[in-house]
Amino acid sequence: MNTFGREFRITSFGESHGPCLGVVIDGCPAGLKLKKEEIQKELDKRKPGASGIASPRKEKDRVEILSGVFEGFTTGAPICLLVWNKDVDSSSYKRIKDLLRPSHADFTNLIKYGGFNDYRGGGRASGRLTVSFVLAGAVAKELLKRLKIRIFAHIVELGGIRAGKKGINSIRRNVYKNPIRCADLKAAEKMRRAIIRARKEGDSLGGIIEGLVLNLPVGLGEPVFDNLDGQISKALFAIPGVKGVEFGAGFSAAKMRGSENNDLFFLKRGRVFTKTNNAGGVLGGISNSMPLVVRVSVKPTPSISRHQLTLNVRKMRMENLKISGRHDACIAPRAVPIIEAMLAITICDFALRAQLLPRVIRHR
Amino acid sequence: MNTFGREFRITSFGESHGPCLGVVIDGCPAGLKLKKEEIQKELDKRKPGASGIASPRKEKDRVEILSGVFEGFTTGAPICLLVWNKDVDSSSYKRIKDLLRPSHADFTNLIKYGGFNDYRGGGRASGRLTVSFVLAGAVAKELLKRLKIRIFAHIVELGGIRAGKKGINSIRRNVYKNPIRCADLKAAEKMRRAIIRARKEGDSLGGIIEGLVLNLPVGLGEPVFDNLDGQISKALFAIPGVKGVEFGAGFSAAKMRGSENNDLFFLKRGRVFTKTNNAGGVLGGISNSMPLVVRVSVKPTPSISRHQLTLNVRKMRMENLKISGRHDACIAPRAVPIIEAMLAITICDFALRAQLLPRVIRHR
Amino acid sequence: MNTFGREFRITSFGESHGPCLGVVIDGCPAGLKLKKEEIQKELDKRKPGASGIASPRKEKDRVEILSGVFEGFTTGAPICLLVWNKDVDSSSYKRIKDLLRPSHADFTNLIKYGGFNDYRGGGRASGRLTVSFVLAGAVAKELLKRLKIRIFAHIVELGGIRAGKKGINSIRRNVYKNPIRCADLKAAEKMRRAIIRARKEGDSLGGIIEGLVLNLPVGLGEPVFDNLDGQISKALFAIPGVKGVEFGAGFSAAKMRGSENNDLFFLKRGRVFTKTNNAGGVLGGISNSMPLVVRVSVKPTPSISRHQLTLNVRKMRMENLKISGRHDACIAPRAVPIIEAMLAITICDFALRAQLLPRVIRHR
Amino acid sequence: MNTFGREFRITSFGESHGPCLGVVIDGCPAGLKLKKEEIQKELDKRKPGASGIASPRKEKDRVEILSGVFEGFTTGAPICLLVWNKDVDSSSYKRIKDLLRPSHADFTNLIKYGGFNDYRGGGRASGRLTVSFVLAGAVAKELLKRLKIRIFAHIVELGGIRAGKKGINSIRRNVYKNPIRCADLKAAEKMRRAIIRARKEGDSLGGIIEGLVLNLPVGLGEPVFDNLDGQISKALFAIPGVKGVEFGAGFSAAKMRGSENNDLFFLKRGRVFTKTNNAGGVLGGISNSMPLVVRVSVKPTPSISRHQLTLNVRKMRMENLKISGRHDACIAPRAVPIIEAMLAITICDFALRAQLLPRVIRHR
Repeated sequence: MNTFGREFRITSFGESHGPCLGVVIDGCPAGLKLKKEEIQKELDKRKPGASGIASPRKEKDRVEILSGVFEGFTTGAPICLLVWNKDVDSSSYKRIKDLLRPSHADFTNLIKYGGFNDYRGGGRASGRLTVSFVLAGAVAKELLKRLKIRIFAHIVELGGIRAGKKGINSIRRNVYKNPIRCADLKAAEKMRRAIIRARKEGDSLGGIIEGLVLNLPVGLGEPVFDNLDGQISKALFAIPGVKGVEFGAGFSAAKMRGSENNDLFFLKRGRVFTKTNNAGGVLGGISNSMPLVVRVSVKPTPSISRHQLTLNVRKMRMENLKISGRHDACIAPRAVPIIEAMLAITICDFALRAQLLPRVIRHR
Repeated sequence: MNTFGREFRITSFGESHGPCLGVVIDGCPAGLKLKKEEIQKELDKRKPGASGIASPRKEKDRVEILSGVFEGFTTGAPICLLVWNKDVDSSSYKRIKDLLRPSHADFTNLIKYGGFNDYRGGGRASGRLTVSFVLAGAVAKELLKRLKIRIFAHIVELGGIRAGKKGINSIRRNVYKNPIRCADLKAAEKMRRAIIRARKEGDSLGGIIEGLVLNLPVGLGEPVFDNLDGQISKALFAIPGVKGVEFGAGFSAAKMRGSENNDLFFLKRGRVFTKTNNAGGVLGGISNSMPLVVRVSVKPTPSISRHQLTLNVRKMRMENLKISGRHDACIAPRAVPIIEAMLAITICDFALRAQLLPRVIRHR
Repeated sequence: MNTFGREFRITSFGESHGPCLGVVIDGCPAGLKLKKEEIQKELDKRKPGASGIASPRKEKDRVEILSGVFEGFTTGAPICLLVWNKDVDSSSYKRIKDLLRPSHADFTNLIKYGGFNDYRGGGRASGRLTVSFVLAGAVAKELLKRLKIRIFAHIVELGGIRAGKKGINSIRRNVYKNPIRCADLKAAEKMRRAIIRARKEGDSLGGIIEGLVLNLPVGLGEPVFDNLDGQISKALFAIPGVKGVEFGAGFSAAKMRGSENNDLFFLKRGRVFTKTNNAGGVLGGISNSMPLVVRVSVKPTPSISRHQLTLNVRKMRMENLKISGRHDACIAPRAVPIIEAMLAITICDFALRAQLLPRVIRHR
Repeated sequence: MNTFGREFRITSFGESHGPCLGVVIDGCPAGLKLKKEEIQKELDKRKPGASGIASPRKEKDRVEILSGVFEGFTTGAPICLLVWNKDVDSSSYKRIKDLLRPSHADFTNLIKYGGFNDYRGGGRASGRLTVSFVLAGAVAKELLKRLKIRIFAHIVELGGIRAGKKGINSIRRNVYKNPIRCADLKAAEKMRRAIIRARKEGDSLGGIIEGLVLNLPVGLGEPVFDNLDGQISKALFAIPGVKGVEFGAGFSAAKMRGSENNDLFFLKRGRVFTKTNNAGGVLGGISNSMPLVVRVSVKPTPSISRHQLTLNVRKMRMENLKISGRHDACIAPRAVPIIEAMLAITICDFALRAQLLPRVIRHR
């Protein structure tokens, strides 16, 4: 369903071409200073619009706080955040209403909802619904600041081009300075060109994003089913276009020997660390003392402007489809802030479950 | 926590060296014929014991039905299934109690549970807890038979050795005939030798397992958060040792162009299919008409018999650890039936949510 | 928290003096014809305003549909319904901000939320939050029409005045014709006068409401914890001012003998009924073939205009409080449509769980 | 379903005449000292057997701890507690298998589960399933001791005979000293005789139980739906035979005026109390500083030995039923410890949600 989390629980609503996108956050502690501007800042990160590479849909996307905040602080009541849809153009969708767009959710939604789904712009299956994730993520990030937990995400591969390995400072400094959301600025430029080239060819590209969580306390995550990795992966698969999730060494761990893959413990200033981090910060479903490292595979945008032969479900015959809507030729860069949001939401939930965040934030 | 699912809900309990492992299944429809023998058959699939490659721990593992079944049929009441632990030898664990075994959950559990966790044999973090998954999976499989849904899993890579691509018949025929659970018998033999070699060297190997679900009805999975891929990935990360989950083209989708990755729809005998299956059977979080294809990365067994330098948490100093318990040098083959079980459990839940399974099974 | 239900799940948000009150309904089947006017009609039932007996707060209360409905039908996506607060006057609340209003939730909310709660008009603890219940109830009622399930509620006692026993036709005809929501029009007139008298004396009255559900299919409700009576009682205690809930003979069953209280089964036109209905339509937590009968005790409005000595929590000393806001001298009549709403919501959830309502409503 | 609670979550399983009754407790903090003897003591409270008034079924009812406890302390893993059924005699049930016992759940279970339910002894609808509640309640009580929260229950009315009002010391001293579980020993003797008389007449009696919780911290309970009263009422309606639940003044509040019913706040040694407790300790769904007072109506035992005319569902005709099994002529006294258990379980859950109980109990 459309609710996620136990102690920090979000409920998403809204469609791509409906009146709005919104989220209700239940379980946010009382007493958190919450400024509209902080939420807006996060929202601005997912904006489309860098010329040439992203969708020309120009949503102003201004957040409104409908409940749960009083005199600048959260009250403990559910927080409803909303963004009105403004720059909606459904014309191109009506034209191709009966044509199944390949690798889109048109067909599955048609069958599941008996044809009653709002198909315009992908409706509820649109990437635009991630607006609600970012809204909730912005609140989660404010909470996590109190635990000094820091969350990052960045492009590590795009269109087959790999970024060079970069340190955390470089990631923090560079990611939101370039439209590719890549810390390696040289690689970013190559990726940008690859996107423009693909777009010109009526095609699209995929990419891989890495998410990082620093200063995560030891002990987050609940075995067996609500473990840290399982719950994060569930959160990440909610992002349209995600096809794989791995932690630490991930799929390459399968090729390693135990003696290589094992992360050896050591003591430093009275605290326990591991020499390597093949575990990606999770052991037995619980955070250890190392950074959480997760990688996400994002498929190439299915909306391409090339002709594609597909099924007209009304006429039940094959027809040529040409998608002319407003689309990103690669959605991976725009998924970067969404991954940050999902990580923040999930960790916030676990921090409350583990009682690391209080139910009322007391200010001095 | 230890509960998973909404309409078909399982609660796992028990520890590796405690009295038993068990599961309570809530929400199983009434009227399902449930024989102990069918459950036992599934349980036998996860047995250790093929000489040379698996743990010498010899659990007889006989299932007992404690509730929810009456005169051979499920009653609609919660079903409690139990396996008593018999061949328990905790001696080797007591000796290394204070030594953090690298890449095990010793450290994270110690911190999370304040030292109160049952450390013997990994306690609740042990692979042995998958007994409870297999018990629930056996019931789920019986239910799915009614929908003709078929579930398979097999090793596609082990110790870096890839299996050749095999058809479904070969998978069905071969997987449980060899201890490696690989459909390519030649590759299986190479893998077996690799395991024996690694074991001799005091080392261990990882592997990749593919799960397949055939005849899945269109429309399973619930956007946004309870989507088919997200929920399955959460279920799979509950299996100890899993470090990555991908669907269809997965991580390689990130390297493809839209024109390559897009699965084109076509019509065959009035039904809709796609030419390729890069989506792995899931679009927008909902099953389409194609087989569900998921791949899981399993890390090499962290318990290796080589000397490892690690921390003694009581003395707070580094010491040499030599693990001498009973361990599989590669856990991937034994994870094969577990993956089947988790797929069955998750799909059963979705089939009930979608009302494809009735609440009472009426027999003619 | 602010979410209720499993298959038909509502999430309430908004405060008495905040921008709006709203609800997100998740799990509503696709294909339900949903007109704004039908929802508005339900909303109008809870309107204040019959002269002399109700709060002079004059909310226009127009519903807006923010998501989940497309071209007049539900889509299967979450439905967000909203009512903007318009006639808000917080002035009187600021004046008495630090004075604990007796038998209000001021004190408990103050402690629970560390003083961050929106105290204006009772904030989230206000009766006004029942707007969100009525919105969700309106949708539930539309669904239940398909099962021919009919839901009623009416005042059976107010200020100690008992209504005469009335049949279902009289209830249907009369309840919304008089401001007391009582089917016995003579008693209603007495009750109305009693309210006016109490109000003049600066006092308030309580009452008892009976809820009825007809044509309920046998088998709704899930033992053990999600039983029909338990879940309904939980729903009803969410209504501010409710202090007791009983089914069928309820508290008087405690005074009966088994031979009196037992409802004897009999057969009529091939269907099973009981001669009496002391069970109130629920046996073992499951609906039997009889009407569901539930009675709810509503306390007298705690806001009375008499002087009351109470604590000033800032000055920590006793002070005289005179409440001058806009209040109903008896809230029971206005709780009548709320009880209908809660019954509809709960039963809708159970009907979906029992697969009596489909996931997609197919129209001929 | 069969699970209750969020942070302290219990899952009940087992049938009256099946192999056992059990419970899985998930979310119990680690580090709680848990002795079998303490659980057994609670279990002994619900034992039948006081001569003349209770069922002659003589279950030894010895608890077994199957998981979650290691070296005498809880581990944080799920705790499975079990009682084997021993003195099972199903013979009398087979004889009346097709006869609907009036006011029993035979009919509703038959319809709901399509005839697959275990009908013997009422199966899952039997009062015997409260064994699982008592097991979980025993653990909850151990936790609540750390907060000095004290829970009591006692009979206040039985067969129309009212007990005199007694103080907490008298309740603590007397309730488990007499088979009626009534603090007023004189009334208890009258009630005992009334039960014996009813039994001789082939009849049964009902009663009212009062539950009390002392030292409850302010702030427990979560508006709107998980409020303290709503959740407690849901827990109490899970007990077979309960037909009504009221808090504080309850149904009599409906007859009071606001000026009578309002509980006036006052200050005593720096803490806030109310002069009266018509609220029963709950305001706005949240515990205030006063004792929680809840009353529960228990219907007369439906199993009476008098002849009753009822339906034979196989032959579809009316027949005479004579119930000869082993039954209590009044179940109210035996429900007393169950009410204590349900209160403990619910409050424990809320104490964890409010972070008043830690996730790991540290011992000095």
